Amino acid sequence: MKKSINRRSFVKSATIIGAAASIMPSNLFAASNKLQIGVIGTGLRGQWMTKLFLNRKDVDIPVICDIDDRMIDMVLKVFEKQNRPIPKIYNNGPEDFRNMLAKEDLDGVYIATPWEWHHPMCISAMENNIHVGTEVPAALTVNECWDLVDTSERTGSFCMIMENVNYRRDIMAVLNMVREGLFGELIHCQGGYQHDLRHVKFNDGKGPYGGGVEFGEKGFSEARWRTQHSVDRNADLYPTHGLGPISPMLNINRGNRMMHLTSTSSQSRGLNKYIIDNGGTNHPNAKIKFKLGDIVTTVIKCVNGQTIMLSHDTNSPRPYSLNFRVQGTQGIWMKDNKSIYLEGISPQSHKWESDEKYLEKYDHPLWKKFENQASGSGHGGMDFFIARAFVEALKNNQSPVIDVYDAVSMSVIVPLSEKSIELNSASVKIPDFTRGKWKSNQPIFGLNNNY
Amino acid sequence: MKKSINRRSFVKSATIIGAAASIMPSNLFAASNKLQIGVIGTGLRGQWMTKLFLNRKDVDIPVICDIDDRMIDMVLKVFEKQNRPIPKIYNNGPEDFRNMLAKEDLDGVYIATPWEWHHPMCISAMENNIHVGTEVPAALTVNECWDLVDTSERTGSFCMIMENVNYRRDIMAVLNMVREGLFGELIHCQGGYQHDLRHVKFNDGKGPYGGGVEFGEKGFSEARWRTQHSVDRNADLYPTHGLGPISPMLNINRGNRMMHLTSTSSQSRGLNKYIIDNGGTNHPNAKIKFKLGDIVTTVIKCVNGQTIMLSHDTNSPRPYSLNFRVQGTQGIWMKDNKSIYLEGISPQSHKWESDEKYLEKYDHPLWKKFENQASGSGHGGMDFFIARAFVEALKNNQSPVIDVYDAVSMSVIVPLSEKSIELNSASVKIPDFTRGKWKSNQPIFGLNNNY
Repeated sequence: MKKSINRRSFVKSATIIGAAASIMPSNLFAASNKLQIGVIGTGLRGQWMTKLFLNRKDVDIPVICDIDDRMIDMVLKVFEKQNRPIPKIYNNGPEDFRNMLAKEDLDGVYIATPWEWHHPMCISAMENNIHVGTEVPAALTVNECWDLVDTSERTGSFCMIMENVNYRRDIMAVLNMVREGLFGELIHCQGGYQHDLRHVKFNDGKGPYGGGVEFGEKGFSEARWRTQHSVDRNADLYPTHGLGPISPMLNINRGNRMMHLTSTSSQSRGLNKYIIDNGGTNHPNAKIKFKLGDIVTTVIKCVNGQTIMLSHDTNSPRPYSLNFRVQGTQGIWMKDNKSIYLEGISPQSHKWESDEKYLEKYDHPLWKKFENQASGSGHGGMDFFIARAFVEALKNNQSPVIDVYDAVSMSVIVPLSEKSIELNSASVKIPDFTRGKWKSNQPIFGLNNNY
Repeated sequence: MKKSINRRSFVKSATIIGAAASIMPSNLFAASNKLQIGVIGTGLRGQWMTKLFLNRKDVDIPVICDIDDRMIDMVLKVFEKQNRPIPKIYNNGPEDFRNMLAKEDLDGVYIATPWEWHHPMCISAMENNIHVGTEVPAALTVNECWDLVDTSERTGSFCMIMENVNYRRDIMAVLNMVREGLFGELIHCQGGYQHDLRHVKFNDGKGPYGGGVEFGEKGFSEARWRTQHSVDRNADLYPTHGLGPISPMLNINRGNRMMHLTSTSSQSRGLNKYIIDNGGTNHPNAKIKFKLGDIVTTVIKCVNGQTIMLSHDTNSPRPYSLNFRVQGTQGIWMKDNKSIYLEGISPQSHKWESDEKYLEKYDHPLWKKFENQASGSGHGGMDFFIARAFVEALKNNQSPVIDVYDAVSMSVIVPLSEKSIELNSASVKIPDFTRGKWKSNQPIFGLNNNY
């Protein structure tokens, strides 16, 4: 039997022993009944999530992996601050994660590396019988998506996508309202990623945000790798923050599925303009051609009839917005004006009212239960929940509530939108990664105050 | 020479004579120097516009045409109230408009009939050398669109589309801001028709709004004809209120043009639900299958790179919104939250501010000049301006500022969106109705305080 199955079986037994253990000296069980989670990618996101995992008494991080010494130094300070043992470090080049995953006895691994590394790292983890939680997107091509599904099904290891926006408080309240039937039958949803990332895509190579127009080798943090995707691809590069939260509302992969999409891209202006405005026309980067259009609009059709509109908008000056709108036969919620209208419930016919009291009234049981722990955990508390969901799945050795099918159905929008744009907005079919199981699969996300 | 050319030449001369005429007894010139406008379609919209035309001292309406005696009675009361001579009436069946257009000596004709009649009436008017202003949409098929262009070019008669939203005060202020460069280079615009029309599509056959679930023969006013389009077609049935105002901002047909679109439709639920909720499952209309999806999302790509997203949403309970958003490399305006953000101008980085002071500061010269006359003219003053634009074009015997190319490029979205939806959101090419003249044509709409 493989080591990680041993480990996982042991953890399950340890959980049962746990009740007796509570009256015994805690250090006796301290090491053994804690989850052993490895971290690959100790950049700013990895550091933050490491802190959240280490906040938990049921988690150890015995090992980390990165190629950037500065980032490793930074994450080690997180361990120090939390009075946790310094982890073992894998930093011997970009493929060293394979050694870590093969040698270490881990329950799970959390991945926060550049996008293009998510897929090979997920595959390697699962092949070593280690459950995996990956930052978004989980994969960048259709084949990579299938590979994640096939590998997860074959190995029995799960592949969770760490889509934190699923746990945003307003989103979960609206999900609650959808399930209570307040919107009637859903007909249309909107989401997206409308976030001015120009100061993330470019910096001075020293700090992570702005101060210069460098990227790639000369950039720091996300500018080192993320910006190159804007050079290479015209696509909705970041669909999951919009599509993830909508998916449970529409029962995607569980009673419903996405059939086809079109994507249409505007011209590309913002990144070049930013370089020229801030670095001058003579800066070498002023000559770079960016393939990514400033605004990419994607429209998805679901088998149960609903439409989803996603907006990707990261190169322009604008206030942050994930563009949420949820609409059914009996009402509509729209985030940008913080408003709702429910027929027969809203006091004035055809007039918006503030969504505030509804978000309070339908506050999700999970949020009610964990409100205090979530506060201050980052991104408005969402990060507490996404970390917890991963840990709970590991502890119970069961499929996470955002599973491999969700991971790929959210992520596949990247390559499919790229294909549609290449073909002048041609309609592109979306694979059924569940192979028909969407017809009988039941909803799993946000069902109660535990999951 | 044909009669209406005589008439139009005479009016032009009369305008010059006008200065001298002002010191002569006014009744000497009363009949001769007024524009002679015919009205086809005296339903509620026709009645309202008749009132606005009759408000003007430079317009006579000597003749009207309709098939509905009740509507004719109603419009005659408008003439009475304004102390105007009762017009000649053509009401001898649905083709009697042809007799009117052939026999009457008119400068122009205004058409406010069911959509399917706009095209044949426009053609007949132009063939009789009568300029025409038609309510939206101008045509329902691609061939009809070409027919309007060809006929207008051949006869020299103009075909204006009476798209009143082009004159909405906020829209014109934003157009002003676009031209002042406040948004930088435009990259993306949104518009649409989000209007709960269920009480328009169904009524009790007596009043125009609600009170029953009848339509067609048993319905009254728009329910008599408009609802059938929701039975027969799945398309963006009403694109012009969204696309019309955006077109001048993007210089459509004048330096820019629309290349292709995709449309995606949600399931159809709202109309059937309304019938059942209000008429019961046993009402005969409860068996009707409506082809029109509740929400149709259309995305258009322009040759200069910009994207346009249009939303058609008329079957669901929701607050009214035309969904406007105008976005460029330097800022964004969004109607639904009444907000704007302009980089380097807005006081807080990445924070919306109210659009109010900008709409005041950039109030369009036309609105400043005609504010008093426009107020109370219907639809927030827009109707005054669209009526005036038609009259001004007639008086000056020149092309209107919303011309036949605008009429068809706005209207062709109906058949093209239908085709795209039929083909699972296939990308559909948009004809260049200017036949290349978009490359050299200059903007004409809203240039100053006169047009």
